[in-house]
Amino acid sequence: MASEPRIDGFLGGRLRIAQPAGGYRAGADAVMLAAACPAEAGQSVLELGCGAGVALLCLGARVPGLDLTGLELQEPYAALARDNAAANGIAASVLTGDLARMPGPLRGQGFDHVIANPPYFDAGTPAPDAGRGAARHEDTPLSQWIEAGLRRLKPFGWLTLIHRAERLGAILSALGAGAGQITILPVSARQGRPAGRVIVLARKGARAPMRLLYPFIMHEKPSHLSDGEDLTPAACAVLRKGAPLNLREG
Amino acid sequence: MASEPRIDGFLGGRLRIAQPAGGYRAGADAVMLAAACPAEAGQSVLELGCGAGVALLCLGARVPGLDLTGLELQEPYAALARDNAAANGIAASVLTGDLARMPGPLRGQGFDHVIANPPYFDAGTPAPDAGRGAARHEDTPLSQWIEAGLRRLKPFGWLTLIHRAERLGAILSALGAGAGQITILPVSARQGRPAGRVIVLARKGARAPMRLLYPFIMHEKPSHLSDGEDLTPAACAVLRKGAPLNLREG
Repeated sequence: MASEPRIDGFLGGRLRIAQPAGGYRAGADAVMLAAACPAEAGQSVLELGCGAGVALLCLGARVPGLDLTGLELQEPYAALARDNAAANGIAASVLTGDLARMPGPLRGQGFDHVIANPPYFDAGTPAPDAGRGAARHEDTPLSQWIEAGLRRLKPFGWLTLIHRAERLGAILSALGAGAGQITILPVSARQGRPAGRVIVLARKGARAPMRLLYPFIMHEKPSHLSDGEDLTPAACAVLRKGAPLNLREG
Repeated sequence: MASEPRIDGFLGGRLRIAQPAGGYRAGADAVMLAAACPAEAGQSVLELGCGAGVALLCLGARVPGLDLTGLELQEPYAALARDNAAANGIAASVLTGDLARMPGPLRGQGFDHVIANPPYFDAGTPAPDAGRGAARHEDTPLSQWIEAGLRRLKPFGWLTLIHRAERLGAILSALGAGAGQITILPVSARQGRPAGRVIVLARKGARAPMRLLYPFIMHEKPSHLSDGEDLTPAACAVLRKGAPLNLREG
């Protein structure tokens, strides 16, 4: 990380998370991911590629009594995640390691939930430092994230992902025969627009048919000058108030 | 076919199509399929499994100057399709044959467009005669429909499909490496509801990324007593007035 951390507020300021000012910083996608994970008190959750811990800690803030584990490739981000967990009073175990070579302590474990926001590179987004570059490029193929996630789940455990909508085919293909009961929530910036993101919930070993939900819409007005000032009530509830996204009954 | 044909009106009565009263009868899905195919005057179109010809003839009614070909497994339906084309004054060549063993006359041909509404079985729908049963059950796997369609396309030709939304994963998987520039239009019965159908447009040999469009909504009100009385203006334009569905710019 080339730069000093800065503090970003999440869930209406309920969480204060240190992230590298000049490196990769998690945002709305991480909060949406946490909102979509159907974890309940007493269950275990593993986040693959947890970065500074935004999704894991948003989930911990919403659902008390979870057993939270994060895996992060880059030690400076893992260290930030540990500090952020402590600073927000949320218990979480964060391991430094590569999901493609799962660390020993995780290899024997089965989780009730795995969550991930696998990195993607948006055209036009500069990568000002090495940390950001490693986080944003797909050094580890998307399929490997999904396979690693499925392996770490207990039978009938839930995998929750958020990714660019254009990778939906690759996601469904990687889920393949290992998961079913797949629910897809498209996320559109505005009503009538193509989906920018998809949130995908899948259950290991399940067979129920796929469902393609009606999109979740982030912004209210057809155009806007300042981002985030025109959130829909539903987006505001998730991003500012920590409301869940219920994909199982959506 | 166990029963006599009856006449159904399509596109606001502009087309009159004989379909077996007690067998499989095409409806809104076939009209939506025809609306989504981006064929232009002078181009060739093949429909796989054309039944009594509803989609092919709706397309012919909307776009003049197409070279229309239908392939149908069941001779009684193929004969109806020929009669329906003649009765509506639309030139179309309908072959009887199995897409899994493509008839000789089609094997050497490349089309600008292939369209298909592969059969699916809706739970609870009775199959009162053999014709309906053969049309509704997936005797030929969905992947085979898609592979046959891609093979019959010219390079950079367009495949347009409509199917149950829950089969989206199977569709994307079958399109695989053979097609790109995939556009998915979810079709929801009402605002806020999961998609019941997906229309998928894909281009043979293309590489452009996938797009997941905002859903097309069929019905206006949150609940209804009589189906079809509460179409949205957009659905009314497609089903009653023969308007196109523009997936390439949607």
